[in-house]
Amino acid sequence: METWDVIIIGAGSAGLSAAIYTVRSGLRTLVLDEKIAGGTITNAPTVVNYPGFLEINGAELAQKMTEHARNFGAAIHEIEAVTALALQGDIKTVTTPTTTYNTKALIISTGSHYKELGVEGEQTFRGRGVSYCGVCDGPFFRDKHVLVVGGGNSACITALYLSGLTAQVSVIHRRETFRAEQSLVEDLTAKDNIKIFWNTEIQEIKGDKKVHAVTLKNNKTKQTSEIAADAVFVQIGETPNSQLAKTNGVEVDDHGYIKIDIHQQTNLPGVFAAGDITNHPIKQVGTAVGQGITAALEAYAHIKQPYHKKHPIETATQLSNTKNPSKP
Amino acid sequence: METWDVIIIGAGSAGLSAAIYTVRSGLRTLVLDEKIAGGTITNAPTVVNYPGFLEINGAELAQKMTEHARNFGAAIHEIEAVTALALQGDIKTVTTPTTTYNTKALIISTGSHYKELGVEGEQTFRGRGVSYCGVCDGPFFRDKHVLVVGGGNSACITALYLSGLTAQVSVIHRRETFRAEQSLVEDLTAKDNIKIFWNTEIQEIKGDKKVHAVTLKNNKTKQTSEIAADAVFVQIGETPNSQLAKTNGVEVDDHGYIKIDIHQQTNLPGVFAAGDITNHPIKQVGTAVGQGITAALEAYAHIKQPYHKKHPIETATQLSNTKNPSKP
Repeated sequence: METWDVIIIGAGSAGLSAAIYTVRSGLRTLVLDEKIAGGTITNAPTVVNYPGFLEINGAELAQKMTEHARNFGAAIHEIEAVTALALQGDIKTVTTPTTTYNTKALIISTGSHYKELGVEGEQTFRGRGVSYCGVCDGPFFRDKHVLVVGGGNSACITALYLSGLTAQVSVIHRRETFRAEQSLVEDLTAKDNIKIFWNTEIQEIKGDKKVHAVTLKNNKTKQTSEIAADAVFVQIGETPNSQLAKTNGVEVDDHGYIKIDIHQQTNLPGVFAAGDITNHPIKQVGTAVGQGITAALEAYAHIKQPYHKKHPIETATQLSNTKNPSKP
Repeated sequence: METWDVIIIGAGSAGLSAAIYTVRSGLRTLVLDEKIAGGTITNAPTVVNYPGFLEINGAELAQKMTEHARNFGAAIHEIEAVTALALQGDIKTVTTPTTTYNTKALIISTGSHYKELGVEGEQTFRGRGVSYCGVCDGPFFRDKHVLVVGGGNSACITALYLSGLTAQVSVIHRRETFRAEQSLVEDLTAKDNIKIFWNTEIQEIKGDKKVHAVTLKNNKTKQTSEIAADAVFVQIGETPNSQLAKTNGVEVDDHGYIKIDIHQQTNLPGVFAAGDITNHPIKQVGTAVGQGITAALEAYAHIKQPYHKKHPIETATQLSNTKNPSKP
């Protein structure tokens, strides 16, 4: 049985950033990923909002971060999925098909995955007009016509966000009412540049190098039609990869995101979480990096206790914890 | 009187990252800095812990971030100090020697400054052996002899952190007792590779390209001596640049850091803070970036209310807010 100071599950932006800091702090660090290292940004053709890189291919940025962690001495095991966890004691165990590891601290950075439409063209045009993140990709479509698919809060917030950036937003919703908050629906319907297609589903996403059109089907009348569009923002749900953590006692919110405090600490001592897996309101590569670094240095402090005595951090009184995700 | 959607005070990593996101979200953004843009990292000769850049000159990274924000359309006014603020209303005003600006949201990212020793050689060897941050620069001195100057918690935590990375740590303290927590002092005195020089002050830092030695003076016996050393970590205090914010009603902690919640929100609606100015436990370039991005998107949500309805975020129950800074 191998013993490590820190094990990090998930080699995305958060996990790799954490590894850079734990290794530099002198902690023996193992990073496990069920896929190859890199995480969600690997799929982004162009990242323009990670400060310092004016424009970089997502896979290239992922590779730079992977090399960065590896170069400092992190062990990164790719295609080694975690199958079991034991998190209650001072020493935690992490089991994979290969072996069982012991560790003094665990950082969970397993991310989330977006629900997909499953229609023709969705995979083909992913990153070339098909997007799952309004803040990330909306600014690429200034003065264009974009579609938003979905009828919940995320779809409505994304449509409102895009209406301020693009020429025209069409919301494609398979039902005849939204299941979003009423105020969002009111704001959305009041917007001149937002059109809503009720009872409508996308059948196919078409284009050449980029998205140019979609085929719509009205599921009441069964009529199909084709409309021109430059982008399709799919907002039909997102699932955090937190099942195994949850089963093993890590506290999650109603949507399955791991609850963290300002130290990236979960409810279990020695167990930290960072990045898209957490209930932090913002899910961007730069915030994942920041959270990974915080988790790393707090894991260090946890291991080296009692060197680092802890006291309460006061937060701003009036507005503290009175707000919620606003992720367009 | 000019009106902006967002004004960001302080063009360091946090402020510039915030600007990238507010501008991309379609908000008219002004960044003000009393110096030239770039912030604290400008002074770091080598940054090796900002994920994605294996090694980069601090001034170069600062310049990349500045260009990044400017390129997207942020207005950056350098050498324009803020002299007055009015933060209570929906529209805030920011006054400089040039004019008074109106803004819907304010992000404060004015950073902090380290107290300096004021001895000969300190400025000359800054970044070449003289450092103010153990986590940032400690790993450059593996197997070396490093000095830590100071006698408070920061000095003791830094000495303990460095003792795990370097061959030998000498703590230089001008008094004959520490004013740090007792447990820290016990851990420190128990370390084989930490030596303490009581009643001792540094008179001069010497070297050629890098630090090689320091001259010490015992302030009781008045004897001076020279000892070989590869680095001097100055840990005699850090002051957040929060005076103007505090005077205008922004809540700060006992050390003067602005209190923020998980949304980077202060006690005043529409006023956010990010980076070293805040009471967030970790103060690194990557965490400043993450906080800046969060502040930006939360400022967007604030301005566009009621699009983004807010609900309480639950944090992890057992350990939430039970801990404190562990910044070595």
